[in-house]
Amino acid sequence: MNTSDIQITPIQQSKINSVDFNNLAFGAVFSDYMFECDFKDGSWQKPKIKPYGPISLDPSARVFHYGQAVFEGMKAYKDDNDDIFLFRPDENFKRINKSAERLAIPAFPEDYFFNGLTQLLKLEKDWIKKGLGNSLYIRPFVIATQPAISASPANEYKFMIILSPAQAYYSGEVKVIFSEKYSRSADGGVGFAKAAGNYAAQFYPTKLANEKGYQQIIWTDASTHNYLEEAGTMNIFFRVGDTLITAPNNDRILDGVTRKSVIQIAKDNNIDVEVRRVSVAEIKEAARKGALKEIFGSGTATVINPIVAFSHGGEDFDLPKQEKSYASFFKEKLTSIQYNISEDPYGWRFKI
Amino acid sequence: MNTSDIQITPIQQSKINSVDFNNLAFGAVFSDYMFECDFKDGSWQKPKIKPYGPISLDPSARVFHYGQAVFEGMKAYKDDNDDIFLFRPDENFKRINKSAERLAIPAFPEDYFFNGLTQLLKLEKDWIKKGLGNSLYIRPFVIATQPAISASPANEYKFMIILSPAQAYYSGEVKVIFSEKYSRSADGGVGFAKAAGNYAAQFYPTKLANEKGYQQIIWTDASTHNYLEEAGTMNIFFRVGDTLITAPNNDRILDGVTRKSVIQIAKDNNIDVEVRRVSVAEIKEAARKGALKEIFGSGTATVINPIVAFSHGGEDFDLPKQEKSYASFFKEKLTSIQYNISEDPYGWRFKI
Repeated sequence: MNTSDIQITPIQQSKINSVDFNNLAFGAVFSDYMFECDFKDGSWQKPKIKPYGPISLDPSARVFHYGQAVFEGMKAYKDDNDDIFLFRPDENFKRINKSAERLAIPAFPEDYFFNGLTQLLKLEKDWIKKGLGNSLYIRPFVIATQPAISASPANEYKFMIILSPAQAYYSGEVKVIFSEKYSRSADGGVGFAKAAGNYAAQFYPTKLANEKGYQQIIWTDASTHNYLEEAGTMNIFFRVGDTLITAPNNDRILDGVTRKSVIQIAKDNNIDVEVRRVSVAEIKEAARKGALKEIFGSGTATVINPIVAFSHGGEDFDLPKQEKSYASFFKEKLTSIQYNISEDPYGWRFKI
Repeated sequence: MNTSDIQITPIQQSKINSVDFNNLAFGAVFSDYMFECDFKDGSWQKPKIKPYGPISLDPSARVFHYGQAVFEGMKAYKDDNDDIFLFRPDENFKRINKSAERLAIPAFPEDYFFNGLTQLLKLEKDWIKKGLGNSLYIRPFVIATQPAISASPANEYKFMIILSPAQAYYSGEVKVIFSEKYSRSADGGVGFAKAAGNYAAQFYPTKLANEKGYQQIIWTDASTHNYLEEAGTMNIFFRVGDTLITAPNNDRILDGVTRKSVIQIAKDNNIDVEVRRVSVAEIKEAARKGALKEIFGSGTATVINPIVAFSHGGEDFDLPKQEKSYASFFKEKLTSIQYNISEDPYGWRFKI
C-alpha cells in the first residue's frame, strides 16, 4: 500500500492555536486528524485519514458489551532540526497484533500500520513540540464494532490512531503499595496483552490505594501474592545494591518496550541485570538492610518513573535519595536516543 | 422518580413487521426503542427513551481503551393473558451495581432502573411473543464515555437498556472441554462481575475449542486447573448419582440468578445439593464408574443447557441419556414460573 492509497479528508481549520502546550493533562487533547480503517467482509478496507471527531456505533457493538478491544501506546519526538522520530515502532506493531490474536481480533497489516502512521504524523507535525519531555502521544487501538451481542468474536472491527500532545505522564512523588488482595491477571489469562479490560479491572483497587495515599499498585502474582510483577501501566525495576532486578515476561506481564530497552542499556553499561522472579520478602528484607536503593517503573507514557516509598503488610518503607540514580541514568539514555541527541547504536530510532 | 419523568421521543414507524420471530439469531435484532441515561457532573441525568439507533462517542471514550463497562442479562416473558413478567429483576439490579463498584463505575439508582425498564417494556410489549422459549432479551449496560485516555475511572458514563427478541440461546448438542491452559479470571480479579473484558478474554480459547469440536469451555481455577468453576456464559452443575454438585461463589465465579434458583428448587424438591469445590479428578472418576449422570449449564440466556460430552487431558467422556433428567426437571420448573404457568412460591415473578 502506498500512502497515496489513504483517502484523506481535509480539516476546515486547525484547532492547534487553542491548545496550551505548557499545560497539558495526559490524553485529554487530541490533534486535528485521526486514522481509521474498518474490517468487514473478511478484510481490512481502504484506510482513511479524516478530521478528528466522534464515531457512530450501534449500541449493540460488541466492544461495549464484551470488551473486545486492544491498544498500543507510542510517542513521536522532534529534534532541534524539526526532524520527527518514533522509538522502536516495530515492537508496538508486533505487540498490537499479539494482543489482537489473544482477543480473537484479526491482525492489522504492517504496511497499513506504518503508512498510516507516517502519513498522519506528517500531517500533524506542528503538534509535536521540541524540548525534552514534550511529545505527541500516539494511541493505535482496535474495537469490535459488529452490532450483535452474541458472546463470540465479532466479524467487524475499527482500527484507529489518535494523537494527543503530551508532557510528562506522572508528576509529584510516587508512592506505591504492593498488592495483597486484588489481582491484575491470571496465569493463562490476557495480562500480557494490552487488552482494554485489563485496565478497568485495576481502577477500583487503585482508587482504594489512592485513598490511602499511594499513587500506584505494584501487582503481585494472583496465586500467592508473594512475587512482584508490574504496575499496570509500567513494568517495575528494583535496584538492590548495584544490581538491577525485574520480573521475567510471562502470560501475566506486559512485554514492555521501555522495559526491554532498559535491560539492553543496562547490559551495555556494565550494570548487572537479573531477570527473575522478585519476591516481596526479599525486597522488604533488602529495604530493612539498606540494600534496596531504588524502585522505578518503565513505560512509554512515563519513560522512567522513580518511586520514593512502598508499603506492604501495613509497613511503610521510604527509599533513600540516590545522587547517581539508575532511574536518572536510564531516563537520560533513553530520551537522548528518542530525541536524536545521542548516537543510536541499537537502531531504535525510526525517522518519519 | 415517576415514569412520567422519563423523556420519550416517539418512533416514526415500528420495524416489528420486518422481523421473522421464528428465525432469530441471538442478540442480532433489536426493538424500536432504547433507554439511555448519562452520568455527568457527578450525577445521573434525566433518563430518556428514544428510537433505537447509533450512539456517537469520541474516539477517546474510555470504554474503547480500558474496557470500563459492565452489563446484565434479563428476559421478559409473556403469558397467555398477555401479561408480562420478569424473573427476579432485583437480583440483576443488585448485581449490575456490584459489578459497577468493582469497575469503579457509579451506582445506578434503583428507581431509574425499574421505572426505565417498566416504561420501556410497556412500549415494546408487542416484541414479547407468547410461547415457551420465546422472550425479549433485556440488555442493561453501562459504558465509560469520558473523552480522555488517562488510565483512571471516567467521570462520564452512559447507562442503556436495549431489547432483543429471543428464542433459545443454544442449539444442537453441546460438548465441552475442561480448561487445562487458559484461564477466565484470577483470585482478587473481576471474574465475579459482569465486566465486559471477562468475555473477550474467552473468545480466543473458545475459538480453539470450537475448532476441536467443543462448543464451550468449562473454566478451571487459574492456579491449579484442578477445580471446575463456570462456563463463561453459564454456571455449571454436575449430577453424580442423584446428588447435584456446583462450585461455590467466589471472586472468580459469577453469582448467577439461574444458578441460585436451581439450588433453591433442588432443596425444595428433596434433591441433595452440594455447593463445594468440584475437582476435575472426581468428575472423571465418576464418569469412569458410570456415576456421573449429567452435566448442565444454567444462565439467563440459555436457562438450562444440557451437556452431552466432556473432554480433559485428551480423554473424551460421553454422558448417558437420562430418561428423567435433572436438566429437564429444572428447566420445566423454571420456565413454568417464568411464563406464569405454575404457582410462584418464591415471589420470583415480577409483573410489568
